[in-house]
Amino acid sequence: MERIWSSALPEHAGESVSLAGWIHRFRQLSGVSFLILRDAKELAQIVIEDPALVAEIARLPLETVIAVTGDVIAVEQAPNGVEIHDPRIEVISEAAAPPPFDLFRPKIQAQLPTQLDHAPVALRHVRSRALARLSAALVAGFRSTLTELDFTEIHTPKIVAAATERGANVFAIDYFGRPAFLAQSPQLYKQIMVGVFERVFEVGPVFRAEPHDTPRHLNEYVSLDAEMGFIIDHTTVMSLLTTVIRGMIGSAQAWLGSLPDQFGIMLPEPPAVIPAVHFTEAQAMITQATGEDLTGEYDLAPSHERWLGEWARRARDSDFLFVTGYPRLKRPFYTHPDPARPDYTNGFDLLFRGLELITGGQRLHRYGDYLAALHERGFDPEPLAWYLEAFRNGMPPHGGFAIGLERFVSRIAGIENVREVTLFPRDLNRLVP
Amino acid sequence: MERIWSSALPEHAGESVSLAGWIHRFRQLSGVSFLILRDAKELAQIVIEDPALVAEIARLPLETVIAVTGDVIAVEQAPNGVEIHDPRIEVISEAAAPPPFDLFRPKIQAQLPTQLDHAPVALRHVRSRALARLSAALVAGFRSTLTELDFTEIHTPKIVAAATERGANVFAIDYFGRPAFLAQSPQLYKQIMVGVFERVFEVGPVFRAEPHDTPRHLNEYVSLDAEMGFIIDHTTVMSLLTTVIRGMIGSAQAWLGSLPDQFGIMLPEPPAVIPAVHFTEAQAMITQATGEDLTGEYDLAPSHERWLGEWARRARDSDFLFVTGYPRLKRPFYTHPDPARPDYTNGFDLLFRGLELITGGQRLHRYGDYLAALHERGFDPEPLAWYLEAFRNGMPPHGGFAIGLERFVSRIAGIENVREVTLFPRDLNRLVP
Repeated sequence: MERIWSSALPEHAGESVSLAGWIHRFRQLSGVSFLILRDAKELAQIVIEDPALVAEIARLPLETVIAVTGDVIAVEQAPNGVEIHDPRIEVISEAAAPPPFDLFRPKIQAQLPTQLDHAPVALRHVRSRALARLSAALVAGFRSTLTELDFTEIHTPKIVAAATERGANVFAIDYFGRPAFLAQSPQLYKQIMVGVFERVFEVGPVFRAEPHDTPRHLNEYVSLDAEMGFIIDHTTVMSLLTTVIRGMIGSAQAWLGSLPDQFGIMLPEPPAVIPAVHFTEAQAMITQATGEDLTGEYDLAPSHERWLGEWARRARDSDFLFVTGYPRLKRPFYTHPDPARPDYTNGFDLLFRGLELITGGQRLHRYGDYLAALHERGFDPEPLAWYLEAFRNGMPPHGGFAIGLERFVSRIAGIENVREVTLFPRDLNRLVP
Repeated sequence: MERIWSSALPEHAGESVSLAGWIHRFRQLSGVSFLILRDAKELAQIVIEDPALVAEIARLPLETVIAVTGDVIAVEQAPNGVEIHDPRIEVISEAAAPPPFDLFRPKIQAQLPTQLDHAPVALRHVRSRALARLSAALVAGFRSTLTELDFTEIHTPKIVAAATERGANVFAIDYFGRPAFLAQSPQLYKQIMVGVFERVFEVGPVFRAEPHDTPRHLNEYVSLDAEMGFIIDHTTVMSLLTTVIRGMIGSAQAWLGSLPDQFGIMLPEPPAVIPAVHFTEAQAMITQATGEDLTGEYDLAPSHERWLGEWARRARDSDFLFVTGYPRLKRPFYTHPDPARPDYTNGFDLLFRGLELITGGQRLHRYGDYLAALHERGFDPEPLAWYLEAFRNGMPPHGGFAIGLERFVSRIAGIENVREVTLFPRDLNRLVP
């Protein structure tokens, strides 16, 4: 008999079916025992009355892999409204030991570091699994939205000859006796590819050797990058980003249905137009509200971002807020200045509930502007000659953004520690599993 | 006026439209001049008669970015059957220099290393671009086929504490003072994730420090990995792989239409069932045909694969051929033996026109089997304890495969050097661009 998924059981009430999966839980009561089977989809309740079979199952460690054939009976009070009766059970692969913690409890009863140490088991918990599915659904939404808009997917190298933006915080590798680095971002490559496809995206790992041990830092993470040519200015990019975020959340809703709800995750509904304030306006509002003097500040402090988040919620009825026009001094060399106020840029941040979520902006596109920007910062253009060739040979106005997947998922899902939404996190202290 | 793509021009005959893109070519004839514009989609022919405009365009380096507004006129002998007449041209971004080689010729007139040095320009050539699109379409087909079959996408770390399979050929990095390595494969992680989702896939970079400078080696490439639980044996995986390859080629056909044809690329049509021969049968056939004594050979030489490719074409009418049952000595420790002939495995290779294209197989799934396999090879299980935990806690029979994207694209497209289908290749000598 062909195996069906546990999630399909309600459609098979009254029939005989085959299931397979892991022994998630076994509850022995006086008259009847309940085996909860977990497969890739959901859980299924199997009723066991035969004492010999109860004894046989009781002997098996939880997480043993079994196949079950039995009758699907509609039972109103059972989970999903169905149970399996009269099961025949075949052990496919017996666990060699019980799991390090109970997977059937609503939350794993262990500290996060212990869970991460035992990720191969902890990830089987239905909540961990739901978060990983949420991540996959958001990535699928990122791709499908951009593909629909004629973006082409690219794969750019992660081993690079020069640090992307600054020399600091890069991992060094020995490349056949030559020094090389792990890419901190596909920024330079995705810009080059605007010259080829006009619109490109990439989903891939990036590496930051930042020695910070905080709930929001990872040393390796997945970056969702997009870059688009023939824009008017950064507002074209902001509009694209809004469409992409709506597509990502829409994809999660379509793929996952009520799954996030089951774990208390409320996905936000980004508005069709996300409100925006200029950096200088934001500063003026904060000064007016708090009396803080922000003269000479070139960035927003976390407390300022929180204030802006509350303001956006209150005054604009939005969890999302664009802050535009960050000062040039705090933005990378390739950032396009605001033509009307050259000390400010066409760079933006997207805040979500008072936390920086995504950074983006318009880039320089003229060769001469690059040479001037590098010169102004005292950077040697020679190591970047390969990159500058794209601009020397004609590039349209362009811009883009980068979404840090794990941080995005954690914030959207209201989860504090980014490690909870990363399968196998890499941080200052963690290299295994 | 809103810009349209060059590919949409035939639908707009008789209308006035706006286009934007790069000056691909400018042909000045005595009475009339032709500007060929290239945008992300195709080329458009613009007819210029005004001598002042001809002079203005003649002054601009090729690859200058322009916007064009003009009338679409149906002209039978023009490319795509349309031309733009009476153009108004605006320079958006002037190139600072002419391109290092002509992009308008059928092939770039420069050796491959020179093309790779100038990748930001060379990738703009319509043939290079078509190959990059083919690659993107194949990856999209990989994902959509697996998603349809309930596979979940995962992202696993590229910085790892231990080499995946052997100590050799790994890139070492300094991870905050500790030794670490770049992952050669997501193999161990994708197997762990079978315990979570049963069916998983990953698209991501892998790194091999192989000091080989050949047309088929890259030191960083994109690996398309899939792994599936609850299989019968390797034949389930072979059937899955057949479906996936058919889905990939189908996606390329659907996305690209006649584009491959334009560049002489004939995509194969994989049969619904790909023929298979056992390793020992393959050896016996080769011995019978060539007289070569293969006793004690644990692998197939390239000449043997070529012979098998010709045989498959002749005797089975197929460009594809599975070779199954490779000897255990030549397969990684996690390979499942053939229960009936334990010196052979449930591992397979897929050959395409006599070249190894993809490797896959059934893996061990019992904890005790792993301990025995590691012991037999003299490997210490301790550094792999994190991986073995998945098997200690119950794992179903499972297997999978890995497709090296660039090699797959090059072979499917009949292109000899894998660098031609890699945007920015990394090899023994190349780290830039």
